[in-house]
Amino acid sequence: MNPSDETPAASPSLPAFEDVLAAAARIAPHARATPVLRSRALDELAGCELHFKAEHLQRGGAFKFRGACNAVWSLDLDRARCGVVTHSSGNHGAALALAAKTRGIACHVVVPEGAVEAKLESIRRYGAVLHRCAPTIAAREAVCAEVQRETGAELVHPYADPRVIAGQGTAALELLRETGPLDALLAPVGGGGLLGGSAIATAALAPGCKVFGAEPEGAADAARSLAAGERRIDFVPDTVCDGLRGTLGEPNFALLRRHAVEVVVVDDAETVAAMRLFWRIAKQTIEPSSATVLAAVLKQRERFAGKRVGLVLSGGNVDLDALPWSAA
Amino acid sequence: MNPSDETPAASPSLPAFEDVLAAAARIAPHARATPVLRSRALDELAGCELHFKAEHLQRGGAFKFRGACNAVWSLDLDRARCGVVTHSSGNHGAALALAAKTRGIACHVVVPEGAVEAKLESIRRYGAVLHRCAPTIAAREAVCAEVQRETGAELVHPYADPRVIAGQGTAALELLRETGPLDALLAPVGGGGLLGGSAIATAALAPGCKVFGAEPEGAADAARSLAAGERRIDFVPDTVCDGLRGTLGEPNFALLRRHAVEVVVVDDAETVAAMRLFWRIAKQTIEPSSATVLAAVLKQRERFAGKRVGLVLSGGNVDLDALPWSAA
Repeated sequence: MNPSDETPAASPSLPAFEDVLAAAARIAPHARATPVLRSRALDELAGCELHFKAEHLQRGGAFKFRGACNAVWSLDLDRARCGVVTHSSGNHGAALALAAKTRGIACHVVVPEGAVEAKLESIRRYGAVLHRCAPTIAAREAVCAEVQRETGAELVHPYADPRVIAGQGTAALELLRETGPLDALLAPVGGGGLLGGSAIATAALAPGCKVFGAEPEGAADAARSLAAGERRIDFVPDTVCDGLRGTLGEPNFALLRRHAVEVVVVDDAETVAAMRLFWRIAKQTIEPSSATVLAAVLKQRERFAGKRVGLVLSGGNVDLDALPWSAA
Repeated sequence: MNPSDETPAASPSLPAFEDVLAAAARIAPHARATPVLRSRALDELAGCELHFKAEHLQRGGAFKFRGACNAVWSLDLDRARCGVVTHSSGNHGAALALAAKTRGIACHVVVPEGAVEAKLESIRRYGAVLHRCAPTIAAREAVCAEVQRETGAELVHPYADPRVIAGQGTAALELLRETGPLDALLAPVGGGGLLGGSAIATAALAPGCKVFGAEPEGAADAARSLAAGERRIDFVPDTVCDGLRGTLGEPNFALLRRHAVEVVVVDDAETVAAMRLFWRIAKQTIEPSSATVLAAVLKQRERFAGKRVGLVLSGGNVDLDALPWSAA
């Protein structure tokens, strides 16, 4: 199979494994090599061997720091001087703010009204300037463009930027280097930065390892797009996974097709049950988006039975005053 | 100073450092060598270098497994055959059940009415027999004695048993071996098994390291006892720290005096704030008892400023439906 036949949306800017390796070297002085967690009790419950890549323990509390850090440290001196700007409902904004801080440059974050307060706190704490906008794509692009015009800041898109995708791929790179070849690897999919980067790293390091996305039913555009063979991103997200409400990016879609990634859809009840289970047994405060991968394995138990499975936990920035099981 | 002059309650059964070393060897095949966690953000907040021994990641979700496991594997074959019995409001009961399971022997746990449901679930899951009793010392001792008469089971006291104290000391042993000498080491104090064992290990491995207990104001019998020079354990506990409501044991008191341990008293508001802070920043679901050590450091900030501080996090068995900050 010739990948280029399969991926009409592929562009020359799609990152490759070399870019993931370069990102790993670039972010090494700043990012944390997060641990891989195991749990005897969860292995027994799932009927397979689970290896959790703990990105909720990454700086900023999410894998997003990897991509943001790679983008910030990829800028030449002249570009860096003008700072960076992004739009983000939370984790990417905080990550870019923190990455900019590691390089001592300015950071602007455009946030939609209604974003999770705990995540906005982090963005402020890391010293970025917040710009509020209406919760529409048009509004956030207009405000972003305005900030770019006024400051000359470099736009770092949360998931479609190839530097960001390459950076996110370093989590799977570290995971596979630690575990050796796995049978399956799962990552949550929102815009597809983490999943796209994971697919690149896995294809190179463990070609026999099947890559899965885990996606909430209320924002299942990746599953629909892969089924249709073209991006289907016109929908109103309705899910407790605030990190996965974005729409699948174009280069991200191309990467998922190229690497024959499959998406498992889980509903919010399954995600919240998996999240609570993980909190109770592993004692880790992961956010709902992270729990989709465990929910997917528990949902398709037969499929993963007896296998060695990697699961990328995307983050742990939870509003402790509004836990999803209290609301029920 | 001659320790024997200072510790009238000392008995020949007080465990020594050799017992801690023997316990470490005995439990090694069964217990987890838990990680030592660091957090840049918490170091900045506290103004010192914090090394957290993560016993919430121990098997059974608490340090208690160490002592229980040491007791269970110390039994000769004849004694082991009759099983073990204990009374416990939770973590020790679950730990003994799990330890008994590792040796394939019976376990009976006497629990007072009103114990945390999440902890009782664990005891059942590990296959122990639950015996309910009224929440008084007399009632629980009567039921324990009855079980012993009927089964011949060996009583493993939650904190006064020298095998248990020696086992609990292995957490500080591992911590100090990993960090090297520290300036201060803090452990929560309820009955004094963990704190007593920690004091033994620290005196041997890092004699310059000062040992502190962290104790809730609503169960501050250790602080009162040390101030009075004799055990003062007649009180009605009133604290959110369900793991620290027990009374200081006699050998435990003797160990605290022998090793000049000092107790820092924290109120529940300070503990809950520290717990929430740790959940938010470190993404670890520690239980209130665990958070007393961080609360103590934050309360006496000047005292620990710039120091290298070890903190033993005792456990992570929280009722996720009744978090202490939701109740407020």
